[in-house]
Amino acid sequence: MTDVARFSLNQETLRQWSLPELAAGCETAGVRGVGLWRAPVQEYGVEAAAKLMRAAGLTVTSLCRGGFFTAFPGPERTAALDDNRRAIDEAAALGTDTLVLVSGGLPAGSRDLAGARERIADALAELAPYARERGVRLAIEPLHPMYAADRCVVSTLAQALELAERFDAADVGVVVDTYHLWWDDTVADGIARAGAGGRIAAFQLADWVTPLPEGVLLGRGQLGDGSVNFRWFCERVDAAGYDGPVEVEIFNPRLWERDGTEVLAETLRRFREVL
Amino acid sequence: MTDVARFSLNQETLRQWSLPELAAGCETAGVRGVGLWRAPVQEYGVEAAAKLMRAAGLTVTSLCRGGFFTAFPGPERTAALDDNRRAIDEAAALGTDTLVLVSGGLPAGSRDLAGARERIADALAELAPYARERGVRLAIEPLHPMYAADRCVVSTLAQALELAERFDAADVGVVVDTYHLWWDDTVADGIARAGAGGRIAAFQLADWVTPLPEGVLLGRGQLGDGSVNFRWFCERVDAAGYDGPVEVEIFNPRLWERDGTEVLAETLRRFREVL
Repeated sequence: MTDVARFSLNQETLRQWSLPELAAGCETAGVRGVGLWRAPVQEYGVEAAAKLMRAAGLTVTSLCRGGFFTAFPGPERTAALDDNRRAIDEAAALGTDTLVLVSGGLPAGSRDLAGARERIADALAELAPYARERGVRLAIEPLHPMYAADRCVVSTLAQALELAERFDAADVGVVVDTYHLWWDDTVADGIARAGAGGRIAAFQLADWVTPLPEGVLLGRGQLGDGSVNFRWFCERVDAAGYDGPVEVEIFNPRLWERDGTEVLAETLRRFREVL
Repeated sequence: MTDVARFSLNQETLRQWSLPELAAGCETAGVRGVGLWRAPVQEYGVEAAAKLMRAAGLTVTSLCRGGFFTAFPGPERTAALDDNRRAIDEAAALGTDTLVLVSGGLPAGSRDLAGARERIADALAELAPYARERGVRLAIEPLHPMYAADRCVVSTLAQALELAERFDAADVGVVVDTYHLWWDDTVADGIARAGAGGRIAAFQLADWVTPLPEGVLLGRGQLGDGSVNFRWFCERVDAAGYDGPVEVEIFNPRLWERDGTEVLAETLRRFREVL
């Protein structure tokens, strides 16, 4: 797993880079995979972005993100499903088989977590055939419980698997992200269960550092700076049979303020050190 | 459970009040129970605080907090255990049988959550006889997973029970706090298990509101302002056989800026509304 051939750079780790800078920077550093985000790809043009990545010899390992499935039936939910179909089209155009889903929080005024999770299942049922036809797998990402109200009511790998396992493994998988799952003493069981079912769609790394910033979105740590035992995670993901990309996805303004080439070199060095 | 006779005011909800103000304010409002914190009690004098509460007809329902048990063996750990013995003495002097424990995060540089949890068990084994002799029960509080690194490696009710169940139920119990546990789809099982074992030592209420503030310590919401389904929780805690105090513990500077009498009246009104 320390093999840099499996390393993938999620573009949000280097938000200071434009897509051409990302392609050039990765090519120079010998990086072979990138995880992309919809907004910058749409801004650049989906086909143009796909061409740019191919020209740099880069594989798009995932597209972030679809999801936000928890609205009650009505125009908002219809719009969300339409937007997810576009996200699936974009993933297919970029040549990635993995669309990462941030499933959505509680609708305003609602306190029904179980109901919200059922609406996620309904959305998956509606989208899975569309995704399958386009060679894209829906990847449910459990987010840390601190996001349960406003971003994602799927807070543990077990919850993600309970949703995913209602569908074919080829259609719906899960994301194992160390930042979200590191605290959970049942996560080893979840990884083994996900691996046995062939459902590990993506493996993402970021470290847990404190204090958390206001809003708790942009406080992820560089690998090795925090509390995550990456070797422990990687051994379990390896043992579960996953041999796909290992994507580093760090949201941290302190990394964005620095020179991108330097940050990428540091990230590659840390990747080798912590694994 | 909506009976105000079971309502207890944790003093941190009204940090703007001195202990005499707290005693007088509760007496005026008809509140019968208070949860106290060690620092203000020590400052006022433990015996004087006990006398003050008794004179106002107030029962001390809990003392916060002992804990911080995760240091490796050495002077820091020895000091923590000594401090916990003092906390037990203080609880006994205040006439409460419940010492709430915030068990501690990862020691600097450590990434071993399981090891830290075992050191908590070791500390409980050392302290339980001392506490029992003084009529005090150690109450393990699972804290939200966002505190796992720096405050408490016990993140779920299941983890708290795994620790507590190694000891007599009369010696070691657990705290059910809605703020920390609301997101967890296994918490109903945990509450039932805790109740069956006679281990619910305290039941605390605060609401979950977003965005979280920097440091994520002081962002708890007034009852009804956020995502917690209090009725759901209370029904399960009731069904589990718990008939003790229901303590409102909200850390929120916006409440501290206001007139205490007004905040207490609002809290009592919300308590009746949400339950």
